[in-house]
Amino acid sequence: MWELWMRRALALAALAEGRTSPNPLVGAVVLDGSGRLVGEGFHARAGEDHAEVGALAQAGAAAQGGTLIVTLEPCCHHGRTPPCSEAVLRAGIRQVVIALEDPDPRVDGGGIRQLRDAGLEVIPGVLREEALLQNRAFVHRVRTGRPLGILKWAMSLDGRTALPNGASQWISGPEARQWVHRLRSGVDAVVVGGGTVRADDPLLTSRGKRSPEPLRVVLSRSLDLPDQAQLWDTAVAPTLVAHGPHADPERLPSGPEILELDACDPLPLMQALAARGCNQVLWECGPELAAAAIRQGCVQEIAAVLAPKLMGGLAARTPLAQLGFSTMDEVLKGAWRQRKPLGDDWLLRLRLDG
Amino acid sequence: MWELWMRRALALAALAEGRTSPNPLVGAVVLDGSGRLVGEGFHARAGEDHAEVGALAQAGAAAQGGTLIVTLEPCCHHGRTPPCSEAVLRAGIRQVVIALEDPDPRVDGGGIRQLRDAGLEVIPGVLREEALLQNRAFVHRVRTGRPLGILKWAMSLDGRTALPNGASQWISGPEARQWVHRLRSGVDAVVVGGGTVRADDPLLTSRGKRSPEPLRVVLSRSLDLPDQAQLWDTAVAPTLVAHGPHADPERLPSGPEILELDACDPLPLMQALAARGCNQVLWECGPELAAAAIRQGCVQEIAAVLAPKLMGGLAARTPLAQLGFSTMDEVLKGAWRQRKPLGDDWLLRLRLDG
Repeated sequence: MWELWMRRALALAALAEGRTSPNPLVGAVVLDGSGRLVGEGFHARAGEDHAEVGALAQAGAAAQGGTLIVTLEPCCHHGRTPPCSEAVLRAGIRQVVIALEDPDPRVDGGGIRQLRDAGLEVIPGVLREEALLQNRAFVHRVRTGRPLGILKWAMSLDGRTALPNGASQWISGPEARQWVHRLRSGVDAVVVGGGTVRADDPLLTSRGKRSPEPLRVVLSRSLDLPDQAQLWDTAVAPTLVAHGPHADPERLPSGPEILELDACDPLPLMQALAARGCNQVLWECGPELAAAAIRQGCVQEIAAVLAPKLMGGLAARTPLAQLGFSTMDEVLKGAWRQRKPLGDDWLLRLRLDG
Repeated sequence: MWELWMRRALALAALAEGRTSPNPLVGAVVLDGSGRLVGEGFHARAGEDHAEVGALAQAGAAAQGGTLIVTLEPCCHHGRTPPCSEAVLRAGIRQVVIALEDPDPRVDGGGIRQLRDAGLEVIPGVLREEALLQNRAFVHRVRTGRPLGILKWAMSLDGRTALPNGASQWISGPEARQWVHRLRSGVDAVVVGGGTVRADDPLLTSRGKRSPEPLRVVLSRSLDLPDQAQLWDTAVAPTLVAHGPHADPERLPSGPEILELDACDPLPLMQALAARGCNQVLWECGPELAAAAIRQGCVQEIAAVLAPKLMGGLAARTPLAQLGFSTMDEVLKGAWRQRKPLGDDWLLRLRLDG
């Protein structure tokens, strides 16, 4: 009976997609004692009101004896804002309906316990799967200490991402390229390697679809980077250059923020980005870095754009370098998550983890 | 008003799909003078009755003053069977409805002219596009002197057709492999190169879905072929080994039929197969021969099976070798013809010519 209201709460949560990191997406609805809608809220951005607080404030005295429907277990700890569980108790709510238990170890059922201890009826697990899907990036980051990684590429039907001479603009059509801007608007950082900067001089922004723009990250072993590059113009969007311990600091570009890692590898970079509050990261890199990111467990999803073209070329670039498999039983298997047309191209999304 | 009956005639024609070469698929319906169905027929196999003849025979005297609906212009020349146009006149048909004009230069509107000269009303072009699609292999062979070529491969989402060590069984799942047997049942010949025989020892049959099985063709420059191979057992299905002028005839396998070509290339092989009456050919070869077949205009359609897997490997096999393009403007562009799920895999068919 609560699914309908929970769908509304999920829809409210989705309004802030891509803007709440490091926090999750949360939506909330408050009904009064007779089941009438008296308040709605969603978490818009880290540091601002949690969804429950906004919905309860809107409801005011009407929340007394009412029901709170919320997509995530109310927090019970002091973060940037006071615990939501206390606000729920103060408002006189009688019943709390929850989709997903908070995977944050600081909460871990504590919010539900606190509400039940205070005598409220708590109904967890309503549309849990939908809520888990909506917050899978947050949940992944909290559970693993790494952002959820999406690896994106565009290829011809024969699996090429560039011609033998490196030419690749454009494999996909305008609709697919616009879709990439939308994809970027939902992530906290976009990662490339030095080779992509040298070869393509990319801009890597959402073209204003997200504000602020996602952090643009270059992982460079050699720091053999061009003096001039669109990424060095941090007035457009922030840029971070990450390098390993053996890089020559003389070669650092001016403009971007610099981050020295213990090793020039995807995993330490992802740990550093998670610590900065990135829930979700988009890999837009070449085959070597992409394969390393997969091998180190930093890619949870592939988003491949397939163009109705044949490019050929034994020396042509392909999406992935060595993964180190020697039998077909070992190869990585995924589950299709989405396929849809983007103009003349096909978008195929493959989920690698459950 | 004739579309409904023409759809029935097209459905009749389709009953013999893959079995009429070198002839086209043809279906026919006969209505009596009051528009009642009195006869149906289709062309089952070369050398047997044409569709019109069967339908008129079934109608008998009821055809007098009636209408013939036929998917292809009646022939007006003596082939293995007498001209159909004469049979139509003899039966006393008053009106002839035709989908597609016969592209055979020996007919070229002659059938329609002959009927009109005899005072019959002729309505051509009803469901012409559908009829052209149904007989696109026949039309292609008659117009170009080469069979229609379909190039098939199975690949992972990262565009690999084998691991770096050559392992490739199985990339696709059981549903996709069964679909390949169905695909073979609709073609006249299946072509591989010597490398595929050496690496995979394939069987290349429709597993009984077509009788006789399609001709299995090996194009081998070196004739460096294994002594034992499933293809050499011609009790299962016929096999043809084609080679160029520089091959060592000492190395010919016993069992298969042998064909010496002027050059060991896809084009002369296709011309030879067309001369033998092949309308449609399936390429199941490695990247070098596949790329050569495309370069020489012997591939009109790609049928790619895409598995939800990542294989990786810089040295791993990809679908196509050199096509010789140096800018993205030059690359081959196609039009999606079909996409459908085959178990966990996706079938994507791309048409290369109009």
